[in-house]
Order: sequence, then structure tokens, then C-alpha cells
Amino acid sequence: MFSITVRDHVMIAHSFRGEVFGPAQRLHGATYVVDASFRRADLDADGIVVDIGLATQELGAVLADLNYRNLDDEPAFAGVNTSTEFLAKVIADRLAEKVHAGALGTGARDLAGITVALHESHVAWATYERTL
Amino acid sequence: MFSITVRDHVMIAHSFRGEVFGPAQRLHGATYVVDASFRRADLDADGIVVDIGLATQELGAVLADLNYRNLDDEPAFAGVNTSTEFLAKVIADRLAEKVHAGALGTGARDLAGITVALHESHVAWATYERTL
Amino acid sequence: MFSITVRDHVMIAHSFRGEVFGPAQRLHGATYVVDASFRRADLDADGIVVDIGLATQELGAVLADLNYRNLDDEPAFAGVNTSTEFLAKVIADRLAEKVHAGALGTGARDLAGITVALHESHVAWATYERTL
Amino acid sequence: MFSITVRDHVMIAHSFRGEVFGPAQRLHGATYVVDASFRRADLDADGIVVDIGLATQELGAVLADLNYRNLDDEPAFAGVNTSTEFLAKVIADRLAEKVHAGALGTGARDLAGITVALHESHVAWATYERTL
Amino acid sequence: MFSITVRDHVMIAHSFRGEVFGPAQRLHGATYVVDASFRRADLDADGIVVDIGLATQELGAVLADLNYRNLDDEPAFAGVNTSTEFLAKVIADRLAEKVHAGALGTGARDLAGITVALHESHVAWATYERTL
Amino acid sequence: MFSITVRDHVMIAHSFRGEVFGPAQRLHGATYVVDASFRRADLDADGIVVDIGLATQELGAVLADLNYRNLDDEPAFAGVNTSTEFLAKVIADRLAEKVHAGALGTGARDLAGITVALHESHVAWATYERTL
Repeated sequence: MFSITVRDHVMIAHSFRGEVFGPAQRLHGATYVVDASFRRADLDADGIVVDIGLATQELGAVLADLNYRNLDDEPAFAGVNTSTEFLAKVIADRLAEKVHAGALGTGARDLAGITVALHESHVAWATYERTL
Repeated sequence: MFSITVRDHVMIAHSFRGEVFGPAQRLHGATYVVDASFRRADLDADGIVVDIGLATQELGAVLADLNYRNLDDEPAFAGVNTSTEFLAKVIADRLAEKVHAGALGTGARDLAGITVALHESHVAWATYERTL
Repeated sequence: MFSITVRDHVMIAHSFRGEVFGPAQRLHGATYVVDASFRRADLDADGIVVDIGLATQELGAVLADLNYRNLDDEPAFAGVNTSTEFLAKVIADRLAEKVHAGALGTGARDLAGITVALHESHVAWATYERTL
Repeated sequence: MFSITVRDHVMIAHSFRGEVFGPAQRLHGATYVVDASFRRADLDADGIVVDIGLATQELGAVLADLNYRNLDDEPAFAGVNTSTEFLAKVIADRLAEKVHAGALGTGARDLAGITVALHESHVAWATYERTL
Repeated sequence: MFSITVRDHVMIAHSFRGEVFGPAQRLHGATYVVDASFRRADLDADGIVVDIGLATQELGAVLADLNYRNLDDEPAFAGVNTSTEFLAKVIADRLAEKVHAGALGTGARDLAGITVALHESHVAWATYERTL
Repeated sequence: MFSITVRDHVMIAHSFRGEVFGPAQRLHGATYVVDASFRRADLDADGIVVDIGLATQELGAVLADLNYRNLDDEPAFAGVNTSTEFLAKVIADRLAEKVHAGALGTGARDLAGITVALHESHVAWATYERTL
């Protein structure tokens, strides 16, 4: 199995509901360093998993819709805790839509899956892994 | 599949038995930077894998029993080489006991598995992966 | 010249005023990975710059006053942009007060200076350096 | 499942053929920071996956055949794009040959698989994973 | 003293002349992860050293003139070894020209100096520091 | 001012004397990831600060005398706390002797200074800086 991963980041504000979150129930924020991995069994005709330039561009496009925002105000996230692991799934699912729409090239339709990791600090991160 | 990972470290002394270890047969030591990952198929009612604060606290508790010690003197490790990969299993198993005992919250009983990585330097690390 | 550095982090929300900030004028947030360095010409009687445990504890205390907060609501920062470089100075100055108050030990009174670095992502950071 | 990973690096020149590569069709180069992981179900008689010293030595031997070279001139790679993901497979396969030849010790014959990751920058990397 | 640093990277081919370089006399290549730091005594009217967005953009512009090239073919580098430390100076000097030309904003004219670090691998890097 | 830095590591056991060290008074150990920086005002005739290969070799030689040892048993350190900052000075001073003895090449005699950083974990490190 082959994979390529590209990294970018996003800076957001949000708050959590639930006693388990303690002081994180207050409005605060985070930088998420985001690693998006694309995997497939065999390389395409160009000898790659997917173009790293295209992957970087489309990850950037997905993150631009989240960046410099208060996620508490985003209708898409009404009533949910935008935890690091939840956001990993949001980004993975939006990248999957990009793949299905052909934004990562026609060869990318043979991708087997996507994993997204969000690093919220130097001591904590989360991942979400899905098939395509 | 979702996961969250928390990082901490531990500083120990030990020696190895066996020619394969060369100069590491002498008493020496290591800092292990420890990454403990918890994974599950779905998020809990709070939208998380397990509380990052609780996970950090319980990893810290497991490491406190090893920290600032000469592992050659620990009865629990008599007669074994406390290699990086062996210690990854020790920590993963002790975290699994914590999960089963409810120390990571009642929701954590739905965890599917644990992976522990121990970084012994910038150029070498080991992992142990298990189910729950 | 000797130095020791300890690392911790803080997660905050804020917004900026000024066209130069573009979309960062919206309420957003950041994780700052914070490195606090203490320097002195000679080691103390224990052979150290300052106790790493105490330095970690006092950096944690300074960051606890900022953590999980919306800095736009903090009276201490009314009317200023809480940029990464500005916050580096805030943290360095508060650590300097700790040193002068003896919180880092009596030997710490011989410290020559403090440098604080705030990493806002994997591709951007800021520092502030001062004497004591 | 256990694993150990060792890290080294290699510096090469090459060019790519195909419009998808844009300016990377020109002769350029890369440092690849290479992580080679070896995994197995159980530890060997010494309590390890494979000797980290031997693993480091054999990874170094594999990389020495690539290092400080223009890959466009290597007969082994004639007519293929030496993409990061392609090179991950080359290195994994050559390490597998080393394992089969006994270069990683007789215990290493119980290894279950190898994964190789090549970091081409701080924002992009590729992996190849295989069984043994 | 305040500073901000932004990070980007560049991928080039080159060779060295001189016995000291051993196998690096062959045509090979490198990824340089480039950190450009800007320092000044006081913050500007916006409370910053220089806009991180502008700094990132101008560093990218400087690197675009080097990226995906064989430096042996660049007239600007005829007859010199394009060592990591030499390239750090090239990039710092070109950024200094950008500052003097106003590309980093009018406030940037109060910058005191620039430092550029080039990481050629996980185990070697070089810096060049200059005043403005 | 130019500099180059090379990285290696060393794994040792030791204990500390003094109440300030708390549990670190017990025999324990550490991996130190060691960064040795060499600086000079101008490049040499080959266009470098010092040969990175030679610098790596000589740093390795200095570390080999410390590696896989219990520093409590080393006569050279009798009666002192082998703190991270103290060891940074030991390594810097031994590298300085190497420079003066010509081990880093004749051009290295123009070096202006050496800085050594020892990372004892992902959250703590120390440096020592000296002239030559």
C-alpha cells in the first residue's frame, strides 16, 4: 500500500459543551496542523499516488472554509462539539468529496482511502481514517 | 476509525543482556518520549474519542511508576530486557487496565484499541499496538 | 553563557484590528507552543541555570492565566492587538516578575535574561528577548 | 503487533516526466528523511523486534547506493519517475532483500512486514508498506 | 528585541567542487527547509514585527527563483560552491533587498536585522545573520 | 555571521545530589539529542563554515566517550551534578579542543565560537555558548 501526505494548518475559535471539557467550555481557540494522507494499492501512470501539488491545493481549499473563524457561529456545526477528532472527520469527508468530484485528478479515483490528522499542540493530536 | 494521541515522557536507567546489544550492555539510560493513542469506531456522546485531559492524566500516572528509576532494580522487569519495544507493551497494557477500570471515563469502555510509541532518540522509536 | 528552556502551550481566542491582518480580523484562535528560556553566565551551586521543574511550574502558572480564554475580553489587553510577538513579551515580562519575586528559587536572582518563543503553527513563530 | 523504526537521510538529484509535475520536470533535487519500520507479532529471544543498530546499519547501506546521485542517470530507474512514493517502495524492497539474506540477524526472519516513509519536506511525505 | 520567523522550503540540484566534499562532488540535490527571521527593537503601530502573511509571501517569492533548479546552471552562482551556509546568505540578502524596496510594508523599514536558517536534513542546518 | 549545526545523540545514566532535584536524585537516565553549532564571520575558501561531514564525525567522537555510560562512575565528573547544562559545556569544551587540535580542518582555526544544545526531552533543553 502506498500513501502520500501533505500538511497545512488552520486557526479557529470555538467552545465546548459538557462538563468533561472543564475550562475548555469557555470560548478559546486552536491552531490545527493538518496532515491529509491519501492511500492506494498501486501507483498511477505517472508513478504517483496523487499529485502532491494538487493535494496541497485542495487541502488548502478545504481549510480556507474553516480558517480564521469562530466555529460556534458556523451553521454546519450547530449543536455539535467541534472537537479535534470531529474536525478530522469533517476535513476527511470534504476531501473525499473533492476526490469524487475529480478535483485531485482523474487518476485519484483509484484512491483507496484518506486519513486526516489534526495536531492541536505538541502533546495532543487526533486522526480520522476512512475508505473511498 | 477515530483516534486521539497524547504525549508525555519518562527518564530511566537500565542495561541489556545479550551480545547483540554491544555497548548498551553497560548501565546507561534513555528519555522516552511516549505517545499513547486510543482508537474507536465512533465518537461518544460528547463528540470525542476519550477526554484528552483524562488521557494525559492517566498516561502521566502510568509513567510516574517508571520515571527516574533504574529499571534493572524493578522486580516487575526481573530477567527481561527492558527494550524500547518491550516498554511500549508495558505502557499499553497498563493503560488498558486503566481503561477497563474506568479511569478514562465510562465512555472509554467502547475504545477499540491502544497504540503506544516510544521515541528513544530523534532517529529511533518503537510501537506496540493492541486491541481492548 | 548557559541557558535552559522549557516548553508548554496555551489555547486562546482573539481577533485583530487593522487592515494588514486581513481575515485574521475575524474572531479566531491559536495554539501557542511556548518556549521559555532562562540564561546566565555561570551555573549555580547545584550546577544548574535554574531548576527545570520550577521553571516548568512557573511557566505553567503564567500560561494558566491566559489559557482557554478570549483575549478580546481580557481587560489587560484592551485596545491592543494580541499578536504572537506581543504575547511573547507579555509572557517574558510575567516570568521576569516571577524571577524577581523569588518563585524560581533564590539562585535564579543571578539570571541574566529571558527569551520567550511562541510557535503559532509549524510555519510561523515569534520571540521576545529581554534582560533581567 | 510490535514495530521499531530507524531514521536516516539521502540527498539526490532527479527530474520528472509528465505535465502533472509542472516545474518539477526540470532537474532539481531533494533530501529525503527516511524512516524504515520493521514489524512483527512477537518479540524475539532478546526481547526486541530487530536490533536497532543493525537496522540502522542496513538502512544506511541501502541509502548509500542512492546518496549523492542524479537518479536520472541510474540504469535501475530508466524510464520511470523516481517519485517519493516510488522511492519508498525501492527502499522497502531492498530492505526486504536484506532481511531475507539474513543481514538483519537470524531472528529477523520472523518479521511480518516493513514500512518505509520518505519525508521530502516539512509539509509532504510518502509511505510504502509491504509484508515479508 | 522582538522577532518573527516564517518557514518555507525549496528543492534544488547542485554539485560541489573541492576534495573536502567527497561524494557530494557528484551532482545531487537537497530540500532546504528555510526559516526567515526578522527582528526589531520595538513593535510597529499594529503591534507586530512585520506582517507574517507578507513575510511568507516575500520569502516564497525569493525561493521561487531558486526552486526546482540545478544551481550549477545558474549564472548568479557561477564558480562558487552553493553550500547550505552560502545559500542562507543569498536568501537573507535577497530578503534584505525586499525590505529596502518596501515589499514587506513601510513599517518594515525599522527592522534591525534578518537571520536565515536552511535545514538540509534532520541532522544538519546552517544560518546566516545580518543587520539591515 | 554564519553557522552550521550538526545533530547526534547520546544515552547515559546518572543521578543528582541536592534536594532541588527531587526524584531525579535517584539513578535514572536520559537521551540527549545534541546540536553542535560552529560559527564564523566569513566562509572559508571552499565556501563553508566547516565541513559538515567532519563536524559530524568529531561530534560523534566526543559523544562516544560519554555514550552508554553511568556518568556517576566517570572520574571526570566526580563530585559534580552532570546536569543538562553542565554537559552542554563539557561537549562544547571538548569540541573546542578538537578545533584547536586541527581535527575539523585547518580552515576551522578561523571559527569564532561554538554553541552546544542538549535536548533532554520534547519539553526541555539546555545550551552553552562559548568563543574560540
